[in-house]
Amino acid sequence: MKRTSFAHWPCSIARTMDLLGDWWTPLVLREVSYGIQRFDALQESLGIARNTLSDRLRRLVDEGLLEKQPYQTDPVRYDYVPTEKGRDFYTVLLAMNRWGDRWLSGEAGPPVTHYHDVCGQESHAKVVCAACGEPMTVENAHPRLGPGYPPHLARRPEIRARFED
Amino acid sequence: MKRTSFAHWPCSIARTMDLLGDWWTPLVLREVSYGIQRFDALQESLGIARNTLSDRLRRLVDEGLLEKQPYQTDPVRYDYVPTEKGRDFYTVLLAMNRWGDRWLSGEAGPPVTHYHDVCGQESHAKVVCAACGEPMTVENAHPRLGPGYPPHLARRPEIRARFED
Repeated sequence: MKRTSFAHWPCSIARTMDLLGDWWTPLVLREVSYGIQRFDALQESLGIARNTLSDRLRRLVDEGLLEKQPYQTDPVRYDYVPTEKGRDFYTVLLAMNRWGDRWLSGEAGPPVTHYHDVCGQESHAKVVCAACGEPMTVENAHPRLGPGYPPHLARRPEIRARFED
Repeated sequence: MKRTSFAHWPCSIARTMDLLGDWWTPLVLREVSYGIQRFDALQESLGIARNTLSDRLRRLVDEGLLEKQPYQTDPVRYDYVPTEKGRDFYTVLLAMNRWGDRWLSGEAGPPVTHYHDVCGQESHAKVVCAACGEPMTVENAHPRLGPGYPPHLARRPEIRARFED
């Protein structure tokens, strides 16, 4: 089944999801961020089919989130190393991780915590406003048309309506 | 095709993705967060198939992210209103939105910005440590076994290895 493409929607959430393609991709990014960067190790740790893994890795390389670095020749084998773009995605994983900790852990508590070496505490992520540092939430953050919103769409009344509240 | 279930993995990222099911779900959550909460309005704004939308809404209600509130009777029709659990997911969308703004916008710039009514600035999300408020990144956040990690898995050498760095 051909999946709907979100790549050209004027929405960074839709574009991000289009790039990810399916839920394996964030898990592959989690693993490489944890330092599991070789094909066989990824395959074993995720229990993912080899062709699915090849496909997701190729996509992440094509999109500039991972870089292939040979660690042996004859036959050549690669480490899949996150680029700056790939490393920055960890912030999204941290936000997702925190939501899941809070809402899906049950009484057992979070399966994984994060030690933050800046402050030396076991902690978790918090989403704040880059300008003032206070929490950013659905209640206090209001979407506005940005510079990259296509002008021909921005003129439509139903589009204008959704960005005014 | 039966999708691999991530629901019981000891990972809040995997559990969150299992709950979402596919990429339509975050877009439905985006819409209801923006106040588009009726079936027909959601269907029109996303261009999603009606059966897919029904299915995603049912799932979000079952999982406690949305609540059905009747706005008319005979026939009965509902608003799909985010619960606290659903509203809190907006933080994940904000983090995803920021990543997409930064890496996928190109020269046009972000399609959408967020006005933060706490500080009165057009801004965007930032992911920080809940304990100290400094940025949390792949470089400075190290995963540790949490209270909810299954003990029989935590004893395995390959699992212990990945949580020690």
